[in-house]
Amino acid sequence: MKEKKFFLSENDIPKQWYNLAADLPPAPPPLGPGGKPITPDMLAPVFPMNLIEQEVSQKRWIDIPDEIIQILYRWRPSPLRRATYLEEYLKTPARIYYKDESMSPPGSHKPNTAIPQAWYNKKFGIKKLITETGAGQWGCALSFACKLIGLECKVYMVRISFDQKPLRKSMMRIWGAKCVASPSNETNFGREVLKKMPDTPGSLGIAISEAIEEAVSDKSGKTRYSLGSVLNHVLLHQTIIGLEAKKQLKMAGERGADVIIACTGGGSNFGGLSFPFVYDKINGAKIKIIPTEPTACPTMTRGPYTYDFGDTACQTPLMAMFTLGHNFVPPPIHAGGLRYHGMAPLVSQAIVEKLIEPRAYNQVQCYESALIWANTEGFICAPETSHAIAGVIDEANKAKQEGKEKVILFNYSGHGLMDLAGYDKFLDGHLTDYSLPESELSKSLESLKNLPKPSLK
Amino acid sequence: MKEKKFFLSENDIPKQWYNLAADLPPAPPPLGPGGKPITPDMLAPVFPMNLIEQEVSQKRWIDIPDEIIQILYRWRPSPLRRATYLEEYLKTPARIYYKDESMSPPGSHKPNTAIPQAWYNKKFGIKKLITETGAGQWGCALSFACKLIGLECKVYMVRISFDQKPLRKSMMRIWGAKCVASPSNETNFGREVLKKMPDTPGSLGIAISEAIEEAVSDKSGKTRYSLGSVLNHVLLHQTIIGLEAKKQLKMAGERGADVIIACTGGGSNFGGLSFPFVYDKINGAKIKIIPTEPTACPTMTRGPYTYDFGDTACQTPLMAMFTLGHNFVPPPIHAGGLRYHGMAPLVSQAIVEKLIEPRAYNQVQCYESALIWANTEGFICAPETSHAIAGVIDEANKAKQEGKEKVILFNYSGHGLMDLAGYDKFLDGHLTDYSLPESELSKSLESLKNLPKPSLK
Repeated sequence: MKEKKFFLSENDIPKQWYNLAADLPPAPPPLGPGGKPITPDMLAPVFPMNLIEQEVSQKRWIDIPDEIIQILYRWRPSPLRRATYLEEYLKTPARIYYKDESMSPPGSHKPNTAIPQAWYNKKFGIKKLITETGAGQWGCALSFACKLIGLECKVYMVRISFDQKPLRKSMMRIWGAKCVASPSNETNFGREVLKKMPDTPGSLGIAISEAIEEAVSDKSGKTRYSLGSVLNHVLLHQTIIGLEAKKQLKMAGERGADVIIACTGGGSNFGGLSFPFVYDKINGAKIKIIPTEPTACPTMTRGPYTYDFGDTACQTPLMAMFTLGHNFVPPPIHAGGLRYHGMAPLVSQAIVEKLIEPRAYNQVQCYESALIWANTEGFICAPETSHAIAGVIDEANKAKQEGKEKVILFNYSGHGLMDLAGYDKFLDGHLTDYSLPESELSKSLESLKNLPKPSLK
Repeated sequence: MKEKKFFLSENDIPKQWYNLAADLPPAPPPLGPGGKPITPDMLAPVFPMNLIEQEVSQKRWIDIPDEIIQILYRWRPSPLRRATYLEEYLKTPARIYYKDESMSPPGSHKPNTAIPQAWYNKKFGIKKLITETGAGQWGCALSFACKLIGLECKVYMVRISFDQKPLRKSMMRIWGAKCVASPSNETNFGREVLKKMPDTPGSLGIAISEAIEEAVSDKSGKTRYSLGSVLNHVLLHQTIIGLEAKKQLKMAGERGADVIIACTGGGSNFGGLSFPFVYDKINGAKIKIIPTEPTACPTMTRGPYTYDFGDTACQTPLMAMFTLGHNFVPPPIHAGGLRYHGMAPLVSQAIVEKLIEPRAYNQVQCYESALIWANTEGFICAPETSHAIAGVIDEANKAKQEGKEKVILFNYSGHGLMDLAGYDKFLDGHLTDYSLPESELSKSLESLKNLPKPSLK
């Protein structure tokens, strides 16, 4: 009987994270006020020093503390599954595997970094973490982590999602977090915004600004800020996905993967699965690695590689990355987790080094792919994840045309049970293709004009 | 390192279901019009003959067709997990294990029978299945099964849930089923009800009547009805849960279980986990087996064992069971799956034979238990499942008082991600204890007065 699922024993959980920074050329440094490189101590009011050390580390392998591993056991190692029913449906000679990150209590890959972040903060003496959330996946994951580890947690949730996604709010509450709509009356910045625009739906940029303001203004020094994607240490924590997947591909009798695919918003689920394979590629393996993004927010496929702010309010350091400009307002597509204007610096560098090949998909094709998935494999995927599945179907069809037995591995980053409204719109025929118009793109890129350009060696 | 999760290989999936009917005294037969025992051919317009054969079978072990096993592989064997964090929280010497049925695509144990039911119907030449659903779990499971197996599916969903639970409706739609609010204009019975009570919120009784009417009135003979609990063949299919759990307890190094707990609405998740252990008990093993129910709908703990109809409209055969009377209208507690007036005949017989010991819990204690669960083990359980967890916490505390290292096994029948509203109400302090008043119970039991009484040998 052909096995479909590959489970690692708990003893086989990776004991170290993989740090891609060790294997890339030196990165253009983040820049602070006046265009000067940021030093670790400048970040100290925002993050605890043990995480800052990981953020700037050049060590290839970083030990995972045993206490963190113990907590990850609640749902890890995650299953690797083979999508035999999709293969049959597509009549492809490709063997399609997916790393199933949807089985975590919050339903996505996000807790892989929420747990270590909460743990390192606690270790450093921090009592409370503040963060922001858009659609709510990250807010749920950090609430969950803080509850298990024993920290207070507060989440600024973008007003429009706060009103439209009450389910996510309930989850945060169950795990003991305080969730407030942003802009709020709880910060100077929030009050300022509300005075000017009392009816604003809010934005991730505003929410980030509020969360950082509250974190750094706690005089006791016991509060810090936490981010769910983009930064080096976040992607580092996620590499447990790819490291597990490598072992599981061996269990499945495969020598490795030919194609790796993951959807990409800030870069964390993509980096998590792919970086251990990027390492193999740097060392000579022949692997095609594809981050997929929406045509509505085509950061990697149409943005330039340059310095930009991580937030709309220009409060973060400047980072060298692919970006659509910090003023970019993505249309309200259902894949809320893929609506970020920038891209993780490590993912961006891998693009510059031609190690990975980004690709954009429009939302109609993505929902079509999600429906094929639900009607073959049976599971209902998150709208973000559907962007990976669209890529998988393309590559499986290509393997069929070429008559090649490729091994395709993708990241099943989350389930779609909290985001069914998009499926209804699609089934009602109310979703249309959306590609960012050239005029809008050039307008948005103007915000980058006076910012420094990274020099690459 | 102490393992927390126990996975069976796909080759270890049970190849036979266990039929408890083989090991109980002859059951009082279902009675049809005029009080005469029902014969298999009288059921033929409603169910396919291969399922009717299972319904009346006295064979102890019934082979699971290989094609069904192949489909169950999508998510089975389900994990057995040890709840070490709950154990630590309770400081109990008990070892608590749970069979995790929440990982199926529809999120509960229901597809364990939806898949075989769809498969046997297809095998029998049926093209379309009709069913009813209350909160939506069963409707989702049957939609999912029909999509994978290639049958049309139509679900009559109780009007109030149809309006209040749009998420479940979306899931059914994704899996290709047609879901209509009941009462509807699509059946004679529905039109009749609507004429008399145009604003009725509907009821499971009405929905069952509509579903059966549509199924039996298809002149082509290619349509049948499907039920998600109560009947013998449904509980038979669910025994795969307990059979897997037995193997997994061995993997965990346990000689068996001392206490078995599951929540009980119609009886299918309880029967599924417990019947293979009831078999051991019949054969001399010392096991305490506890079905838990809500104090708001105390079928097993306060109802009599007698003949009653399965539906409100008195269209089904009379079954010998514990019942609150077919007119009983349970209050709108959040555990929608536990609001049934009757109890599976096999579960009822096991109570009569003193093989199992029912217990009732009120909803406040259940939500308190669910919150302890979410804040220790990390997962968010269904409101139904919280009734099992309340029982588990009681038994674990008892083990502590007695200083005994008991093994407690319970059925984690489903996740709560589609039912978060109840948690919000609980956290807002808006939920109160509810026990069925004696006066209401006696009034409801009046409907049983003129019905025959089962004779037990």
